[in-house]
Amino acid sequence: MKKLYLIGMGPGLPEFLTVQAIEALKRIDVFFMLEKDGRGKEELLQMRQDILHHYIGESGYRVVVANSPTRRMASGDYKEDVKVWHEEKHALFQRLIDEELEDGQNGALLLWGDPAIYDQTVSLVSDLVARSEGQLDFEIIPGITSVQMLAAQHKIPLNRIGESITITTGRHAETCDPSEIDNAVVMLDYNASFQRFRNQNMDVYWAGYLGCPDEILFSGPVDEVTDDLLRLKAETREKKGWLMDIYLLRRRRNEA
Amino acid sequence: MKKLYLIGMGPGLPEFLTVQAIEALKRIDVFFMLEKDGRGKEELLQMRQDILHHYIGESGYRVVVANSPTRRMASGDYKEDVKVWHEEKHALFQRLIDEELEDGQNGALLLWGDPAIYDQTVSLVSDLVARSEGQLDFEIIPGITSVQMLAAQHKIPLNRIGESITITTGRHAETCDPSEIDNAVVMLDYNASFQRFRNQNMDVYWAGYLGCPDEILFSGPVDEVTDDLLRLKAETREKKGWLMDIYLLRRRRNEA
Ligand SMILES: C[S@@+](CC[C@H](N)C(=O)[O-])C[C@H]1O[C@@H](n2cnc3c(N)ncnc32)[C@H](O)[C@@H]1O
Ligand SMILES: C[S@@+](CC[C@H](N)C(=O)[O-])C[C@H]1O[C@@H](n2cnc3c(N)ncnc32)[C@H](O)[C@@H]1O
Repeated sequence: MKKLYLIGMGPGLPEFLTVQAIEALKRIDVFFMLEKDGRGKEELLQMRQDILHHYIGESGYRVVVANSPTRRMASGDYKEDVKVWHEEKHALFQRLIDEELEDGQNGALLLWGDPAIYDQTVSLVSDLVARSEGQLDFEIIPGITSVQMLAAQHKIPLNRIGESITITTGRHAETCDPSEIDNAVVMLDYNASFQRFRNQNMDVYWAGYLGCPDEILFSGPVDEVTDDLLRLKAETREKKGWLMDIYLLRRRRNEA
Repeated sequence: MKKLYLIGMGPGLPEFLTVQAIEALKRIDVFFMLEKDGRGKEELLQMRQDILHHYIGESGYRVVVANSPTRRMASGDYKEDVKVWHEEKHALFQRLIDEELEDGQNGALLLWGDPAIYDQTVSLVSDLVARSEGQLDFEIIPGITSVQMLAAQHKIPLNRIGESITITTGRHAETCDPSEIDNAVVMLDYNASFQRFRNQNMDVYWAGYLGCPDEILFSGPVDEVTDDLLRLKAETREKKGWLMDIYLLRRRRNEA
């Protein structure tokens, strides 16, 4: 029997881990660190290493670093590309569990933010567990998501009384009807889709590198700040080489 | 200058606090504990006390317990009732800050889950800070929400690739068009609104008292398990006297 822990590490610094997560770290034999090439790979790996050093020192466990497959725009068909990507990840995980984890050992992945939000690892590992005929088990440990940090750092609630919250992707924000959105947190936005929400009486609350030493916050009425935000994003990305950002779009209410 | 910390305590047990939250506890002079009468009041107060004892012992700070105003269905107008309720809370907070917190001191509220999700405290304190003419400041410390615990304990992601997530209320689930929902986490549901989602090819993932010693999990196709879930809820509420529950409704996909 082997066991995998999917541990939510929060948005970067060691202080965002829960005590439950720290206790789990102590039970782990092998940490798997999968990063994509490019986009801050070294820095992201270093943040995971820092968490381990901070809480469990430098020995008593193994770290296995592997290249995470990237989604290629190969077939021209989005769904097909995602499927191939998923299969590659699947094969990688299977190999790591077979070759790098011994029977009776605990393995772990430190997942950015919370494992339940826009991360394929849960469904992937769930598949492997289902096929393992009782040889593999897994457990999920929640972590602070970038969604929550966004609200905390801007000192705002995610929604106002009675309202719903939508958490969505740049892809969706690019194609949806802007008038249907009241409170939307947009993640994975590669095309600055907030631009589409001009003339909607909305505010944007934006953040880059939340919970990291370089954290940047920016907010204002979409109609007035779009150009400034585009400039800020471009400058930041150029300076640092990569950018991880998230924002909340919120319709203003005309209230007393 | 006075400062208020709104600290997300997660879903109940001490282990769900982050290190950031624990560090904040150590800086606090006065903890305000506001609970509503009824619905597990004693138990909820005790869980907060347990967190303090666990991390900062029994002395070196003050605890001020106050009755939180409850929303009365007085005027027959929902918005009006909410407004009155909000004003009562406002007056209570103002009084507590004026009378129970000295200049230079740090006060805190331990908020259930995460402060940004369906909790009025952030906007309320934000109002007070805005009116304080620089005499009051505040900070928010994120916590693990019941939304995340729900997914972690059921070992599922909140959404599947590319899909959005909606977090909403029982009130909304009662009135919305069921066909518009793909992934909805429903909170504050007093009328078992999942019943409306029969014949929609949906699954429900339900949990009561998440992260507490009495945690209960239940899931299945809405069409098949509605009656069982209604029975489970009724039995649980009767046995314990109160129930705190949450669920995810998810449309099934017909995929290979
Ligand atoms: C693949 S998703 C993973 C989300 C993660 N599971 C979480 O809970 O935050 C990556 C997206 O999350 C957002 N994100 C994650 N961490 C962030 C951070 N520290 N600062 C800003 N955005 C972040 C960005 O929108 C990014 O495109
Ligand atoms: C006023 S809201 C506060 C939510 C809180 N801020 C959070 O992040 O979980 C209360 C609702 O949250 C959900 N909830 C909070 N804690 C829960 C728990 N431990 N188990 C199940 N549901 C919970 C229930 O739906 C409840 O009606």
